[in-house]
Amino acid sequence: MREVFQQSLREVQERLVEIAELVVGTITDATNAFGDSDVALAERVIDSADQIEELGSALDQLTIDILARQQPVASDLRLVVGALRMSASLERMADLAQHIAQLARYRYPESAIPRGLKKTFTRMGALDVEMAGKVAELLRTQEASVIVEIRDLDDDLDELHAKVFEKVLSDKLTDNPTGVVDATLASRYHERFGDHAVSVAKQMQFFLSGTMD
Amino acid sequence: MREVFQQSLREVQERLVEIAELVVGTITDATNAFGDSDVALAERVIDSADQIEELGSALDQLTIDILARQQPVASDLRLVVGALRMSASLERMADLAQHIAQLARYRYPESAIPRGLKKTFTRMGALDVEMAGKVAELLRTQEASVIVEIRDLDDDLDELHAKVFEKVLSDKLTDNPTGVVDATLASRYHERFGDHAVSVAKQMQFFLSGTMD
Repeated sequence: MREVFQQSLREVQERLVEIAELVVGTITDATNAFGDSDVALAERVIDSADQIEELGSALDQLTIDILARQQPVASDLRLVVGALRMSASLERMADLAQHIAQLARYRYPESAIPRGLKKTFTRMGALDVEMAGKVAELLRTQEASVIVEIRDLDDDLDELHAKVFEKVLSDKLTDNPTGVVDATLASRYHERFGDHAVSVAKQMQFFLSGTMD
Repeated sequence: MREVFQQSLREVQERLVEIAELVVGTITDATNAFGDSDVALAERVIDSADQIEELGSALDQLTIDILARQQPVASDLRLVVGALRMSASLERMADLAQHIAQLARYRYPESAIPRGLKKTFTRMGALDVEMAGKVAELLRTQEASVIVEIRDLDDDLDELHAKVFEKVLSDKLTDNPTGVVDATLASRYHERFGDHAVSVAKQMQFFLSGTMD
């Protein structure tokens, strides 16, 4: 029985890692589709987010089965409950990648990136990709040091988010309301992506230490 | 033991209702602060969202205790697991009310609502308030018919969200990038608020019927 239970917990962890790795691929593709106005790649991102949602739902069902049948306690319970929340965050990260890809698709063949913001969005995309990679690493290794790295990356992302607004509200874009909308939404999506990565990190911290701070 | 357990489940439900009712107050105040550029009211909204987060964390702890000590099954388990997710959605609704209030505060003494969009945002705010009220009603009464009402309200909200973009991208706001940013963000916040109300409704459907669709 204990062996079956340990196997279930390993499966929860493996499935979280699997979903997180798919999120890495999705945000990488979304960032490239957005940067290069690659509409075919954008379509693929939009499809893959649905796949991640299905895997998330299947994982939720597994965790509910474990709660019902195996009554975990202490850190095992924290992992199972945490998995429910982490899968929700990972799904939201995939949704946000999808939204970024949708912006690229809407504006095609134009670019969704207003002039003067190309470098900033390239950097935001790279930060999102790096954060997603760190989330997958954290889920795989359960190394607490990765939590700190994720929080630091999120601080960098928040700074860039503030910078986008400064730029958009400067006088450079007054003849381009579409650019203002796109930059506002894209920046918000990137920033929220980082917030969800931090949520996963917090859940792992709760799992590893039993406290949320 | 069974009596203690039933009491715990009632407490979960009561706390969800309590949080949902606070969300109704918060989104009502946020909508008024945004519509009237009332900076004092905006400050109160920003404070109340933190209170809701604390209540949400306390409820999460209660549900984890119940999972650990009382090993619920079937619909009881669905309620407890659902409570974890619903509290997260209610907290996000409060966050979004906070973001709406922040927009009002940033622009004060100017209005955050660009000209020509006052009526649309008044309607979006009213829809958010109504949806939050329906969420509280659903949690209190557990009446499946309310789920349908919430979904219908969300459809209305999505239509208005699309309308805001049409308006913003028409040629009326080209001299007002701040207005474009504010309208884009505010509309997105309202739309996400509705999405989270629908998430709560879906969780209640799962609790009531055992299926997600």
